[in-house]
Amino acid sequence: MTKNRLEAFSDGVLAIIVTIMVLEMKVPHSPEWDAVEPILPVFLSYILSFIFAIIYWNNHHHVIHTIKHVNGKIMWANAHLLFWLSLLPFVSGWMGENHFASKPVMLYGIVALMSGVAYYILEMTIIKSHGPNSLLARAVGQDKKGVVSVVLYSIAVGIALYYPLISCFIYVSVAIMWLIPDKRIENTVE
Amino acid sequence: MTKNRLEAFSDGVLAIIVTIMVLEMKVPHSPEWDAVEPILPVFLSYILSFIFAIIYWNNHHHVIHTIKHVNGKIMWANAHLLFWLSLLPFVSGWMGENHFASKPVMLYGIVALMSGVAYYILEMTIIKSHGPNSLLARAVGQDKKGVVSVVLYSIAVGIALYYPLISCFIYVSVAIMWLIPDKRIENTVE
Amino acid sequence: MTKNRLEAFSDGVLAIIVTIMVLEMKVPHSPEWDAVEPILPVFLSYILSFIFAIIYWNNHHHVIHTIKHVNGKIMWANAHLLFWLSLLPFVSGWMGENHFASKPVMLYGIVALMSGVAYYILEMTIIKSHGPNSLLARAVGQDKKGVVSVVLYSIAVGIALYYPLISCFIYVSVAIMWLIPDKRIENTVE
Amino acid sequence: MTKNRLEAFSDGVLAIIVTIMVLEMKVPHSPEWDAVEPILPVFLSYILSFIFAIIYWNNHHHVIHTIKHVNGKIMWANAHLLFWLSLLPFVSGWMGENHFASKPVMLYGIVALMSGVAYYILEMTIIKSHGPNSLLARAVGQDKKGVVSVVLYSIAVGIALYYPLISCFIYVSVAIMWLIPDKRIENTVE
Repeated sequence: MTKNRLEAFSDGVLAIIVTIMVLEMKVPHSPEWDAVEPILPVFLSYILSFIFAIIYWNNHHHVIHTIKHVNGKIMWANAHLLFWLSLLPFVSGWMGENHFASKPVMLYGIVALMSGVAYYILEMTIIKSHGPNSLLARAVGQDKKGVVSVVLYSIAVGIALYYPLISCFIYVSVAIMWLIPDKRIENTVE
Repeated sequence: MTKNRLEAFSDGVLAIIVTIMVLEMKVPHSPEWDAVEPILPVFLSYILSFIFAIIYWNNHHHVIHTIKHVNGKIMWANAHLLFWLSLLPFVSGWMGENHFASKPVMLYGIVALMSGVAYYILEMTIIKSHGPNSLLARAVGQDKKGVVSVVLYSIAVGIALYYPLISCFIYVSVAIMWLIPDKRIENTVE
Repeated sequence: MTKNRLEAFSDGVLAIIVTIMVLEMKVPHSPEWDAVEPILPVFLSYILSFIFAIIYWNNHHHVIHTIKHVNGKIMWANAHLLFWLSLLPFVSGWMGENHFASKPVMLYGIVALMSGVAYYILEMTIIKSHGPNSLLARAVGQDKKGVVSVVLYSIAVGIALYYPLISCFIYVSVAIMWLIPDKRIENTVE
Repeated sequence: MTKNRLEAFSDGVLAIIVTIMVLEMKVPHSPEWDAVEPILPVFLSYILSFIFAIIYWNNHHHVIHTIKHVNGKIMWANAHLLFWLSLLPFVSGWMGENHFASKPVMLYGIVALMSGVAYYILEMTIIKSHGPNSLLARAVGQDKKGVVSVVLYSIAVGIALYYPLISCFIYVSVAIMWLIPDKRIENTVE
């Protein structure tokens, strides 16, 4: 298994996830603004999920960049991450169509949480096979940022049934936290 | 972040955008021409959006070709462009299904305008990080053509509520303006 | 414009066309064979279109393989081919859903015909820019096989309103004609 | 035909198959768990099909990795495999939506069986053109594992009308059998 093909396949899946999410915004049959209005929450949900997917794509790149060899465990840890990310169009659509109601917001958080866990597992699988002195190990260490995200998502899931809007606020906060460029890997590589 | 992966991901998203737009042409259940007729405006809208997407793909290639290094800002400026382009299937479908009515034409123009703005931001982000003597800076300068497109789109959006067909005419004109090969970058590279 | 990116983009579009066509086979809600039966003609249509797309992908590869430089004309000739091929899911679905009725069969033929014409234009555009001694010029010459296909498709379109099944028979025949490996380019390269 | 383009195209098709399957999980209009409940079997079916597709992607990589040259026969044997795999979203959706009823389970098995047969044909086509001392020939030999899968799928198809759940159990077992890393090719390469 070469690193390039793992990257190409992951890129393909992520590119399709991003683009397919737009299909949840159903084209209305009327040419009036009224007809577009109900799509607005789906659009907001799409923006969040788009940023979410780009962040994963970006970080995924950094992580795979440090890999020297790919084994079966890394391949499956990567597939596991893609699995959870592939559910994004579904939960994003459900959350948007139901105007950020509690249960859809909760399910969105569960998928975000599991994606975060899967990402963490992928990192640790790579570190385990590349050794504690590997680039990735030195760059992310215990990946505090990843752990914090998972904790925040857990809280968001926990309170979604009562305060779905606070959960949404947490999702946005985690996204912003990741938007701030993460130079750990880049710096270590240099 | 390597330039190659940025290109591959952008190519993937653009290829899916182009192909997914066809899905807005719903297969009719009757085998008669009458059944295909209402799809004709969607088809016209598809032709315009297809050309629109290919132009972006082509210019995107030229711009990325001049890049020497990719940083976080370039990555997000690129994602921002892909975001607006990803809305193309939605606005293209809405415009076609409603026979180029004023509001869908206006929304189409807004997405075209924002794509143009995003493209300009991407160019300026690259020039800023690569310096005023970089290939791109010398090739596009202030990118007058890009600025003219954005101005034309703004006019089209402004008048769409009153003269949607003139707006459509402007969209087609901008496309033709870009169809005429832009040899600035190619010449500068040589 | 590098040849590699032209290939990657075309591959992406063709891969999506192939896979999206399956979506025309709508999943039935009943678990009985009766429910699958009406999908059978769509399935037959899918098989034909799948082979059709693979043939284009394969020949496209051979043609692009001979290219040394890509200019704007080649890029647009290629986009023109992709445009017609992108209509394949629509006409394939319409033909299958209406059990190979005359008008859908005719429209299918028109798209097949225009794809053939677009392919021929692509070949001639490449030959024109690479010279009469280029690999492609020596390999395909006037591309008799391509011309024969276009003629056969024209006949099929012409008679589709009266004998749609004969038109289908012609489509299958052209596919078989291309399935027989075309060693012209391979031989010339060697 | 270069090996790289065969890989890129196959990767593209597989990435789209995986991601398109999610579209079979239709976003419910109600924000309650009741609305998501009927999607659960579709989700289970998706998990199985996702693993199924990743296994093929992984093994496909190993097989193509051993190829030195690509001819028309290999290209078509590969397209034949992609054809059967492209039906996965359809049969996966039908099986899930009908709660693993006998006929959908049977059809799922037929597609799994034919994919297995197509994979075997691809292996043998490569071995035939690369000789009995080729890497692949030495690595997989008669590919007992592939043959066992095909036999198990045949049994599952045969009993699906009477014991669909046992058939499902067989599908899961075959998947687990393949999840256990197959080091034959890797070892032979080394």
